[in-house]
Amino acid sequence: MNNPEVGDRMHALVERLHPICRSMTGDGVRRTLEIIGELIPLDVHEVPTGTQVLDWQVPREWNVRDAYIKDSAGRRIVDFADSPLHVVGYSVPISATMTLAELRSHLHTVPGQPDRVPYRTAYYSDTWGLCLSENALARLHDGEEYEVVIDSTLADGHLTYAEHVVPGELDDEVLIVCHTCHPALANETLAGIAVAVELARELAASGPRHTYRFLFAPGTIGSITWLARNRDRVERVRHGLVLACAGDPGGLTYKRSRRGDAAVDRAAAHVVSGSGGMIKDFSPFGYDERQFCSPGFNLPVGLLTRSPNEEYPEYHTSADNPELVTAEALTDTLVALLQIVQVLEADRTYVNLEPYGEPRLGPRGLYKSPSLHSDGKQYQMAILWVLNLSDGEHSLLDIAERSGIPFTTVSTAAQALAQAGLLEGKEP
Amino acid sequence: MNNPEVGDRMHALVERLHPICRSMTGDGVRRTLEIIGELIPLDVHEVPTGTQVLDWQVPREWNVRDAYIKDSAGRRIVDFADSPLHVVGYSVPISATMTLAELRSHLHTVPGQPDRVPYRTAYYSDTWGLCLSENALARLHDGEEYEVVIDSTLADGHLTYAEHVVPGELDDEVLIVCHTCHPALANETLAGIAVAVELARELAASGPRHTYRFLFAPGTIGSITWLARNRDRVERVRHGLVLACAGDPGGLTYKRSRRGDAAVDRAAAHVVSGSGGMIKDFSPFGYDERQFCSPGFNLPVGLLTRSPNEEYPEYHTSADNPELVTAEALTDTLVALLQIVQVLEADRTYVNLEPYGEPRLGPRGLYKSPSLHSDGKQYQMAILWVLNLSDGEHSLLDIAERSGIPFTTVSTAAQALAQAGLLEGKEP
Amino acid sequence: MNNPEVGDRMHALVERLHPICRSMTGDGVRRTLEIIGELIPLDVHEVPTGTQVLDWQVPREWNVRDAYIKDSAGRRIVDFADSPLHVVGYSVPISATMTLAELRSHLHTVPGQPDRVPYRTAYYSDTWGLCLSENALARLHDGEEYEVVIDSTLADGHLTYAEHVVPGELDDEVLIVCHTCHPALANETLAGIAVAVELARELAASGPRHTYRFLFAPGTIGSITWLARNRDRVERVRHGLVLACAGDPGGLTYKRSRRGDAAVDRAAAHVVSGSGGMIKDFSPFGYDERQFCSPGFNLPVGLLTRSPNEEYPEYHTSADNPELVTAEALTDTLVALLQIVQVLEADRTYVNLEPYGEPRLGPRGLYKSPSLHSDGKQYQMAILWVLNLSDGEHSLLDIAERSGIPFTTVSTAAQALAQAGLLEGKEP
Repeated sequence: MNNPEVGDRMHALVERLHPICRSMTGDGVRRTLEIIGELIPLDVHEVPTGTQVLDWQVPREWNVRDAYIKDSAGRRIVDFADSPLHVVGYSVPISATMTLAELRSHLHTVPGQPDRVPYRTAYYSDTWGLCLSENALARLHDGEEYEVVIDSTLADGHLTYAEHVVPGELDDEVLIVCHTCHPALANETLAGIAVAVELARELAASGPRHTYRFLFAPGTIGSITWLARNRDRVERVRHGLVLACAGDPGGLTYKRSRRGDAAVDRAAAHVVSGSGGMIKDFSPFGYDERQFCSPGFNLPVGLLTRSPNEEYPEYHTSADNPELVTAEALTDTLVALLQIVQVLEADRTYVNLEPYGEPRLGPRGLYKSPSLHSDGKQYQMAILWVLNLSDGEHSLLDIAERSGIPFTTVSTAAQALAQAGLLEGKEP
Repeated sequence: MNNPEVGDRMHALVERLHPICRSMTGDGVRRTLEIIGELIPLDVHEVPTGTQVLDWQVPREWNVRDAYIKDSAGRRIVDFADSPLHVVGYSVPISATMTLAELRSHLHTVPGQPDRVPYRTAYYSDTWGLCLSENALARLHDGEEYEVVIDSTLADGHLTYAEHVVPGELDDEVLIVCHTCHPALANETLAGIAVAVELARELAASGPRHTYRFLFAPGTIGSITWLARNRDRVERVRHGLVLACAGDPGGLTYKRSRRGDAAVDRAAAHVVSGSGGMIKDFSPFGYDERQFCSPGFNLPVGLLTRSPNEEYPEYHTSADNPELVTAEALTDTLVALLQIVQVLEADRTYVNLEPYGEPRLGPRGLYKSPSLHSDGKQYQMAILWVLNLSDGEHSLLDIAERSGIPFTTVSTAAQALAQAGLLEGKEP
Repeated sequence: MNNPEVGDRMHALVERLHPICRSMTGDGVRRTLEIIGELIPLDVHEVPTGTQVLDWQVPREWNVRDAYIKDSAGRRIVDFADSPLHVVGYSVPISATMTLAELRSHLHTVPGQPDRVPYRTAYYSDTWGLCLSENALARLHDGEEYEVVIDSTLADGHLTYAEHVVPGELDDEVLIVCHTCHPALANETLAGIAVAVELARELAASGPRHTYRFLFAPGTIGSITWLARNRDRVERVRHGLVLACAGDPGGLTYKRSRRGDAAVDRAAAHVVSGSGGMIKDFSPFGYDERQFCSPGFNLPVGLLTRSPNEEYPEYHTSADNPELVTAEALTDTLVALLQIVQVLEADRTYVNLEPYGEPRLGPRGLYKSPSLHSDGKQYQMAILWVLNLSDGEHSLLDIAERSGIPFTTVSTAAQALAQAGLLEGKEP
């Protein structure tokens, strides 16, 4: 993963997806999935408006052709063509001329950040609104009349989501979830999609043990729809991660699943802590881990981000754009994900076959570090830790956690010991 | 409890009780209980001297008519009429003339606090003494002879204690204990009594689920006497709190019961921590929690104070007077007690009836905070936490502890969810 | 243990043993054991070269008669007679004349510590080398030829180790292990031996409950040999401690056994924490606890040091000499060991015979501190803690841990309470 091309490729995808107007439903979501589908094959699902999904119903489909505010001189002051953020999500259509006084309650800005446009939605509320910067708002005049147009449709249609599966030796699944519903938010939404695409490619190349299912769906209603349609098979989900805010320069953050001690929680905490990142306990707010971790499902699904949502200043504004996202940060997220995947794939329990005293390492060629390991001392310590704790009760992850040595090094040491005849895998 | 009258009323009771000479036994205790009895009905118990109570015997009764030191000019240098603190508790009678040299071993001051009179007792030791300030002692002369009188009686009589019961739906009891044995110590002794009286009134008005038993008794021997006489019914005590040092401006402190994780420990820790107060582990020193938490009884009885005993500079001196106690602090203690009581009364476990995914809140009127809650965001989070954790395994207190949201808010959220048909109480 | 003679005696033993050339095998080890045997009776074991011991074989015996580097003027630049550290352990014999260039790969110094000679070994590798200070190396010249002689023998012989047993009432054993293989390292090797000798004497004088077995053996191969020859009786080892680095001025350090919560771990942690020392979790590097804690044996054997190995600047250099070791530090280690032993000997569980309320202490003479205890208040608190927790579920060590009072004080309080008829020992 030291290949700089991968980081650049991820960043290019973020840039390409950025201008599209996405929401819970509609053509922007379809277009987003089309582009992803050029990179990895997708099964796209269309679920009709009105379908009962758990406690919810699939909403009407929303599409926007145009939207603007024109001043009395006919100039577009606010223009949907500049950014989909200018229209409040799920705005009903409007075409009217009104004074600033009448208009004001429909306008949204970011107080204190005068050049940024906020991200707002009006799901399930039959209203309309426009978003603009404080600077743009300051240029409107009290006496003037403005033409306001939102040329949107809210009509029966479909909710669109997609799946990509990397088959493994086992039927049990690792679920990777990205939301697809936010327009023009590069870090929050698109960075996770870009990382997921590359993860899928890496997994396909490596031939994994578990089956990996990638879900690209609108937040909340998308995951609820998937859960409703897959209710009988959710017990296949052995591990899961929601990805979001995956490309900003902040460090990694892992939020545990509701279970708190699921295998994915331990694997992610090991990797993220080891990289200097932060571990948070579960809370029922955030992204779609809320749905997967609802008490009826209680699936082992955590949340991997860099800066947590709501905790970076660009969050939910037009400043969450491709400039905030870096190829380095995207690559760092991908590397962490691959390491988490490695733990989920490779963790197992061994038994030391020479458990009385330490076995001689020198004659077995285990005393010197193999050249592929730059940190020879840590590898040598891993050899001793694996021998000491491989009593059939401690898995490699247990050993990594207790020793503070990265799982990768512990796993490599275990393989060398097994080749030397000192370890034997324990049957599960 | 924003009624400032209640704080003033508590402070007035502290002032009224302050001048009375109290000890383990005697008319000062009776007079104290008479005054409390004007506010809430009391069952007063008189237990004869010599009665065996557990490992102890009820002591002789002690009463003081007068006590003083007169100088050679006949002036009272130290006078019991000024403060009952001037006489060492349980002093035997004395009437003699002696030099300062002879007198000195019977005089007690507070080193380093020249204007304060200490509180001292000589229980079970057949001696006598007088307490005075360092300043007063400095005015005595080495050559002069002094008349010393303690007109006390130590005679067979009774130990006096009282109970007040607020009956509830259940027979199991919450025990609230105040000591009544200290003369003229406003914060240590009287503030707890004043708060207990108001708590009893609030409970009577609310019609509680548990039965609440208030015990007003001398420290150590009083609780031992009560335990001896109620040995067969102590298992009714489901929760208990000893109250002391309840009115000074310091923050709240809760000392856990010997069990450490009793329901009252968790309830009090939640409330006191939430108010910025301090939680201490059990130790076998302090107030009568020592007796209730002796290993044979091991009752779930903790200690609620503001500044802990021995840890405020006025402790056991004449400076522990009504000026140290404030109406605000008394009210704050009462509010905390009512919140603890609320947890004991209202904690229960619910089951989420829509546990698959999050249910829609908007159509059920649960998305906006009810107007009675100023902190709407916390209420909204409580709604999500209650839904997420109400799997039949987590009580409301569990949810409050895990979420860090006050029990009151969690409980209100649960009621709203139950009314909306989303929660159902779990049968115990 | 306030007897300063004991400290001086230990230091004198360190000085006497310091010049001897020790290694895994050979006459230096035998001479060391002879000197120890003058102080306490030893069973000396000789195990032939080639004997299979667990996964290892007893190595050839190594002895050195002489070793030096002579310059072209015939002067000894490096001389084994000055210090056994000058010869790399297990060097094969050499007698040659060579240039500095040829010699250099066989010379070892301590980079950055110009006046110190390092300690090096070449076990199991059929090579040779000499150790010298950077200053001495700087005096060698590139053009000059040097005569290099190591007059050593590597031949079939024996591995030598010794045992000393202090018999107790019980057959179960406390194992105390000192390594005997390092030449001229006063703190790392000899301080532990000196402390162990005095501990053995103290134990013999006191008549212990457990049997104490002292093992003086070369590191790694010695313990492996002992384990191999005692494999059927290792289950007698109820507690064990490896002693090393026992005489430097740093504070005490206890490293837990692999079990982590063995009785010796709790006893040593209590004593070492109470002295302000440091507690470390187990790791499979260090001294012979590695072998005793290998997963097949998993014995409850921890490591007691002062400054941990590798963490003091004199470690494995000629500066680890008798000047680094002080009589005070040796005494402090001995006192801690005796306190740990006291916990292992005296910990037991009592039952409070007056468990309902607190019993009266005054009439039983328990209210005032006995004169032998300077810290009367702590003793009085220990009385209350022992009464409160002696419900048959808490041992004296449990009480010491929970109260933070030293085990010694807790134990003395328990004895006083038992004599007063308030406590009764619980049958195990």
